[in-house]
Amino acid sequence: MTFSQQLRANANLVEGRLQEVLGALSKTAPPRLAEAIHYAVLGGGKRFRPFLVIESAKLFGLAPDAALNAAAAIELIHCYSLVHDDLPAMDDDDLRRGQPTVHIAFDEATAILTGDALLTFAFEVIAQEETHPDPAVRCELALTLARAGGPAGMVGGQQLDLEAERWPRSDAHDLDRVREVQEKKTGALISWSAEAGAILANAPAEDRRALAAFGSLLGAAFQIADDLLDVEGAAAEVGKATGKDAAAGKATYVSALGVDGARARLQRLQQEAVSVLDRFGAQGDILRQAVAYVAERRS
Amino acid sequence: MTFSQQLRANANLVEGRLQEVLGALSKTAPPRLAEAIHYAVLGGGKRFRPFLVIESAKLFGLAPDAALNAAAAIELIHCYSLVHDDLPAMDDDDLRRGQPTVHIAFDEATAILTGDALLTFAFEVIAQEETHPDPAVRCELALTLARAGGPAGMVGGQQLDLEAERWPRSDAHDLDRVREVQEKKTGALISWSAEAGAILANAPAEDRRALAAFGSLLGAAFQIADDLLDVEGAAAEVGKATGKDAAAGKATYVSALGVDGARARLQRLQQEAVSVLDRFGAQGDILRQAVAYVAERRS
Repeated sequence: MTFSQQLRANANLVEGRLQEVLGALSKTAPPRLAEAIHYAVLGGGKRFRPFLVIESAKLFGLAPDAALNAAAAIELIHCYSLVHDDLPAMDDDDLRRGQPTVHIAFDEATAILTGDALLTFAFEVIAQEETHPDPAVRCELALTLARAGGPAGMVGGQQLDLEAERWPRSDAHDLDRVREVQEKKTGALISWSAEAGAILANAPAEDRRALAAFGSLLGAAFQIADDLLDVEGAAAEVGKATGKDAAAGKATYVSALGVDGARARLQRLQQEAVSVLDRFGAQGDILRQAVAYVAERRS
Repeated sequence: MTFSQQLRANANLVEGRLQEVLGALSKTAPPRLAEAIHYAVLGGGKRFRPFLVIESAKLFGLAPDAALNAAAAIELIHCYSLVHDDLPAMDDDDLRRGQPTVHIAFDEATAILTGDALLTFAFEVIAQEETHPDPAVRCELALTLARAGGPAGMVGGQQLDLEAERWPRSDAHDLDRVREVQEKKTGALISWSAEAGAILANAPAEDRRALAAFGSLLGAAFQIADDLLDVEGAAAEVGKATGKDAAAGKATYVSALGVDGARARLQRLQQEAVSVLDRFGAQGDILRQAVAYVAERRS
């Protein structure tokens, strides 16, 4: 199986679980809210974070099924963050994956509530017995997911990102600030996804730390590739507006390092991420391919 | 100690715990976000939901300290819901407890993120070991809290409430619909608060069910009293605009039952709530007083 096929196979598995857990909502939630939730979650996406959860769990001999609730939960968090990020008061985006964003397809209040619902529901999914038979493991997953997604993690990164648009031009070139935004906004959840497999498997602390570090490096590579795509990609391929960051004067790895500097940094991060996987031998191959996938993606 | 003194004493305890858990954020979250979070949480409030958590735990011999994290978590959820409810796309309120709402005091994006942060952080607090030594209990608290706060609970109720403004006039008089909105929007979290003590104490299933039922009845009484206040209260005493529901054509217990009908229903709910507490004997006195407090409050 090629990497793309494995990514697609895992995406199919997690979409199946998402459909299952969301299916119950059609009976218990208001129809319009349930519809918006389905629209926000099941409208495509590469399911890259769930992929990491499933593959990191496999490193320790866990079957995909044993990782599916955790994988579904991180995707719910990711989807909520997109719905709220797209809101008029935030990034004000009308399109996502070529489709109208939730506040356009429904309305702004429904979009706010859809995000709130998905965020809350992610913790319902994590706390369920199906996630793992040991409640201590479920609590650890919930605790670390909340930290990664909360004010010291993703939400904090989003706040910094919005404030960054108002930074003086000189700060947009400050690598430390760009890095802090990225580590919180996109890094924390990607790192959690890689670490989750070790938590699910009750893996040794060093393996867990290694996977968290791998996820951080991968997250940074992901963001640099994204910043490069914004200046180099064609809108049609990327599926959203490009050149937007520069137009908004946003602080990115490209604004801080230039295109060549960002490309060099991306290459170094790739190497570091791959070397962290040495401890897992041949079993780490699919995650090594994930590094290349992230660095070389064109959309 | 009078009821008001006990309510205040419990509020002081939970505010102390909230200050502790939020204190850490000043080091890890972006300053403006941390400031908005503190503003949203520590700007007053009766802390009625935490009161219920603490008092229901006391029924089973638990000290207040053993209930404080659960009490803090429900207040974080309550505060997030107020911040998002006040947003321009939702209820569009400029004042809350006589102070500018978060999107007025800060800005709309910060208010959205403050709500997201508080909601996520509530689950961090619940999942912490300080909440309860047994991870199975922490998972049960997280699971039930997510259900009460999510798309089938509070968020769903908020969605229905917003849609209700667009209902035809005849539906505003439909008691079943008014009840469904209320049970989700305010009832679910109040019911959880009363049930939480039984979960923390690993109490027998019948006691747990009784407290959940008590909380549901109390929540309905709370909402009817609120609806009556909206038509009868003076804005200065209530601390927010009154007469707003009727002006917005909102479906309330008063629009469905009339003032006298709502008052009669409130009295019946009071009696039912008190009788559910019979099983707890004299120990249930403070919760009996809570029923009277809710029914007779003037602000």
